[in-house]
Amino acid sequence: MMQPTITVIGGDQRLIVTATELAAGGYSVCCYLTAETTLKKADSLQEAMEQADIVLLPLPLSNDDKTIQTMEGTLPFYELLRYHKPLFLGGKAGPNFLQEARDNNCRFQDYFLREELNIYNAIPTAEGAIAIAMKELPITLSQANCLVTGFGRIGKLLAHRLKGMGANVTCTARKPADLAWIDAFGYQKLPTREIQKALSDYDVIFNTVPTMLFPKEVLHQTKQDVLLIDLASKPGGVDFNAAKDLKRKAIHALSLPGKVAPLTAGIIIKDTVLHLLQEQNIIE
Amino acid sequence: MMQPTITVIGGDQRLIVTATELAAGGYSVCCYLTAETTLKKADSLQEAMEQADIVLLPLPLSNDDKTIQTMEGTLPFYELLRYHKPLFLGGKAGPNFLQEARDNNCRFQDYFLREELNIYNAIPTAEGAIAIAMKELPITLSQANCLVTGFGRIGKLLAHRLKGMGANVTCTARKPADLAWIDAFGYQKLPTREIQKALSDYDVIFNTVPTMLFPKEVLHQTKQDVLLIDLASKPGGVDFNAAKDLKRKAIHALSLPGKVAPLTAGIIIKDTVLHLLQEQNIIE
Amino acid sequence: MMQPTITVIGGDQRLIVTATELAAGGYSVCCYLTAETTLKKADSLQEAMEQADIVLLPLPLSNDDKTIQTMEGTLPFYELLRYHKPLFLGGKAGPNFLQEARDNNCRFQDYFLREELNIYNAIPTAEGAIAIAMKELPITLSQANCLVTGFGRIGKLLAHRLKGMGANVTCTARKPADLAWIDAFGYQKLPTREIQKALSDYDVIFNTVPTMLFPKEVLHQTKQDVLLIDLASKPGGVDFNAAKDLKRKAIHALSLPGKVAPLTAGIIIKDTVLHLLQEQNIIE
Amino acid sequence: MMQPTITVIGGDQRLIVTATELAAGGYSVCCYLTAETTLKKADSLQEAMEQADIVLLPLPLSNDDKTIQTMEGTLPFYELLRYHKPLFLGGKAGPNFLQEARDNNCRFQDYFLREELNIYNAIPTAEGAIAIAMKELPITLSQANCLVTGFGRIGKLLAHRLKGMGANVTCTARKPADLAWIDAFGYQKLPTREIQKALSDYDVIFNTVPTMLFPKEVLHQTKQDVLLIDLASKPGGVDFNAAKDLKRKAIHALSLPGKVAPLTAGIIIKDTVLHLLQEQNIIE
Repeated sequence: MMQPTITVIGGDQRLIVTATELAAGGYSVCCYLTAETTLKKADSLQEAMEQADIVLLPLPLSNDDKTIQTMEGTLPFYELLRYHKPLFLGGKAGPNFLQEARDNNCRFQDYFLREELNIYNAIPTAEGAIAIAMKELPITLSQANCLVTGFGRIGKLLAHRLKGMGANVTCTARKPADLAWIDAFGYQKLPTREIQKALSDYDVIFNTVPTMLFPKEVLHQTKQDVLLIDLASKPGGVDFNAAKDLKRKAIHALSLPGKVAPLTAGIIIKDTVLHLLQEQNIIE
Repeated sequence: MMQPTITVIGGDQRLIVTATELAAGGYSVCCYLTAETTLKKADSLQEAMEQADIVLLPLPLSNDDKTIQTMEGTLPFYELLRYHKPLFLGGKAGPNFLQEARDNNCRFQDYFLREELNIYNAIPTAEGAIAIAMKELPITLSQANCLVTGFGRIGKLLAHRLKGMGANVTCTARKPADLAWIDAFGYQKLPTREIQKALSDYDVIFNTVPTMLFPKEVLHQTKQDVLLIDLASKPGGVDFNAAKDLKRKAIHALSLPGKVAPLTAGIIIKDTVLHLLQEQNIIE
Repeated sequence: MMQPTITVIGGDQRLIVTATELAAGGYSVCCYLTAETTLKKADSLQEAMEQADIVLLPLPLSNDDKTIQTMEGTLPFYELLRYHKPLFLGGKAGPNFLQEARDNNCRFQDYFLREELNIYNAIPTAEGAIAIAMKELPITLSQANCLVTGFGRIGKLLAHRLKGMGANVTCTARKPADLAWIDAFGYQKLPTREIQKALSDYDVIFNTVPTMLFPKEVLHQTKQDVLLIDLASKPGGVDFNAAKDLKRKAIHALSLPGKVAPLTAGIIIKDTVLHLLQEQNIIE
Repeated sequence: MMQPTITVIGGDQRLIVTATELAAGGYSVCCYLTAETTLKKADSLQEAMEQADIVLLPLPLSNDDKTIQTMEGTLPFYELLRYHKPLFLGGKAGPNFLQEARDNNCRFQDYFLREELNIYNAIPTAEGAIAIAMKELPITLSQANCLVTGFGRIGKLLAHRLKGMGANVTCTARKPADLAWIDAFGYQKLPTREIQKALSDYDVIFNTVPTMLFPKEVLHQTKQDVLLIDLASKPGGVDFNAAKDLKRKAIHALSLPGKVAPLTAGIIIKDTVLHLLQEQNIIE
């Protein structure tokens, strides 16, 4: 099986880590409009695309669902698609991107849809949330009362690490099965519908649920010096205006993997891309 | 809402715990052909069924998919169904049972299908597996090399506790997502297809996968004094005859919750039954 | 440096593990009146002693502080001392043994006094205590309320593993510094003088303190179906007669390392003996 | 027993927390030259001292072993001693302070010498070290290779939390007993004399030993992008000039409790002071 040539376009430091790791793994890699790198660079889009078997694009792919984010402005997706390369890979593609790929008969795959990438990304997200808590709280996490809302990927890994730091951890979930998991891992369980029970006990609240769990009337019941860290994607689960009115410190912490651990985050993308190529027998 | 009267029929010590806990929770409970109890007992099936709103049957319901296991022999399911009570509950119903309930226009629900029961049961199963390992191994679990095959409910909770005991834990899984979870919880990960790699390193192997992962040629690669504990339901994942030939100690450990922690196991059934009744608005 | 010849006399399965491990490490080993072994055996005490540089004796050395326990009856210590070998090693020597060695101008060292042996032995002791709890309790350790009295070697390692199994762990200590450690490792702390506070909350009590912490009036306050596991050396810290009167299940669990994990226990002795010889520059 | 009146002089935010907590505990507290507070303040030293039974001074007491640090410059210790109050308490007293107290027949006690204060302070120190590592490393702590030198208070609690965060933890110690503890808690053990073995494996090194463990020739063997966090009091255990020459990132992180968790740090002082007064029967 011949190793495919991978062209990497745009993105931030993370994607350069991905590119560097792919090159270190023996793949032929060419970069275009990426962050600073010592890898082979193309001078023009044409040069970049000419030899590409696979075109690797950033995570997130785009801010406007039309153009790709690069270090030197944006690049219309169509500019790439017209080269009709065998496979385009990118993260968090919007409906326009997907449509445009289909319209041009190009195969596009969103590596952000891969379950393992999201699990691995939950690790730096959990660490970043803990780092924020340690920076902002005047108390130790050890013996701090922590509430984690939602027992999905981030909730599971965050609760695990908070307990490892010596915190008292309470987790919320709606389903009996998730509440059973919370019990089985040794956290205090709290059905989501009872969230207002004893809310003033918590020193720090980590929200992972992308619905408005903390409107003004709920925030009102938290303790005055509580810290709220909202990890749910926009608009999040906290009414930030109400938090301001009530003088609760609330932080919307987004895109933590790239900020907290860019090297790890880049390796996660690399591993995911390789899994994806392996499963399609493009590589061994 | 009136509290329903629950009639409990058959079963072992666990079901008496369930019945006792239900009675302690304020429910009117009547027992028939159960294990020894101080709860109200019916002298005949008719007496037992007369006032029943809900008929609670054992886990497992039957050994032959025809009759219910009781302390005094078996009882044909039809004998109960003909009373046409509003709800029959039992665990691990076979196809004949389900058919018979339908044929008699009776509502039957299998509480063993509830996810939370299976998660909670994985806790005593994990503890039981650890107890067996501690009893059989001439070494401590601390620093023992443990392989856990399969990262489902039992695999997850067993790995967690083995690590808590100081063991070196390796877990296998097939899917990249499960391998990511294994990484994220801090175990060594091993794709199932590479299971034969370094198999002689393990002091104890816990199998949770109900497929033949350990045929003779694989067993041959384990160390001579390995301990195999197979937790997968019959026929399990270990070739026990081959293990005997190769003088590997292999134990098929089944139905651990009721053996290891009958009190906890009975409470798990009670909690599950209550969830089930709550979700159907039969109780509050 | 020439490797010393080590003669091993008496003892149980553990000491054979020690001997076998020493032989595997390149030492010349000769056994006499030991448990079954494939190592070189001497036919007479004279043959055993003739080439010995070091005489390795069991743990415990003696039951009567006069004679050494062997697989074929006892052997007076003097019979060995009269050979005037450079170094005698044994575990738990009584005052008569020490005096006799001095009287005969023989160098005797008690390897049971080595701190690291006692730390390592606390691991199988903790595991053994957990195995007993799992066997005897009708509930899971997960979420069980456990009291550990004393925060010495066994208390520290037992609490660590109980927490790893998902138990709720409370530890007692007298000194503020030990109570601080208990806090720092995330257990509930309880000053020893307040031990009677909420004593009925515990499902299982592990005693590690060799003073009478549980006389009748204290036992009276435990719950009826509590399990008491006393790990303190005789006479222990529980009034076993009172426990019987009050129908509390109480188990005096002694000498667990050799019973629970003879292989590990033998390796611990081997490691300790090697440390001891290294520190005296007898080996490298 | 009458509650003593406590006068608090000088110090930073932490000591105000201590004072506030003492007042909340029912003690009569008066502040002088402290950080901002709503507690009762004295306008002059005389007023502050007049009613004092106990004089509580900062941690550290002094930068020059002569004068006390306050928010408005320094105050000679003698100015306080001449009031001959029953008990002076301060932290980290130098020889001059102690001599001056003796010369004036005043009872002075150093609460920093209390073992429990140092154990409790090791918790925020460990958290602060982890926060620095998370901020500085481009990788996650999860699966990072961490070396912790020294297995004293900070080493023990730091290793525990690093493992709780999913790191691979190796600890060094000199004594066999400490190496046994390292094993027993499930870290990799490394005798201090073998520290140079595989030094390039570590992503981050935490030093807790106040001797020069990392001179240039040792630093040279670390990986280029290692992070060194030195927690040992000045001059520490890392050659910082050599680290600079070799382009190793090295951080000397001191006095973390007050910086990382001032509220917890103040409560620790309060608890310690109360223990100290209880043991002397000054309070109940």
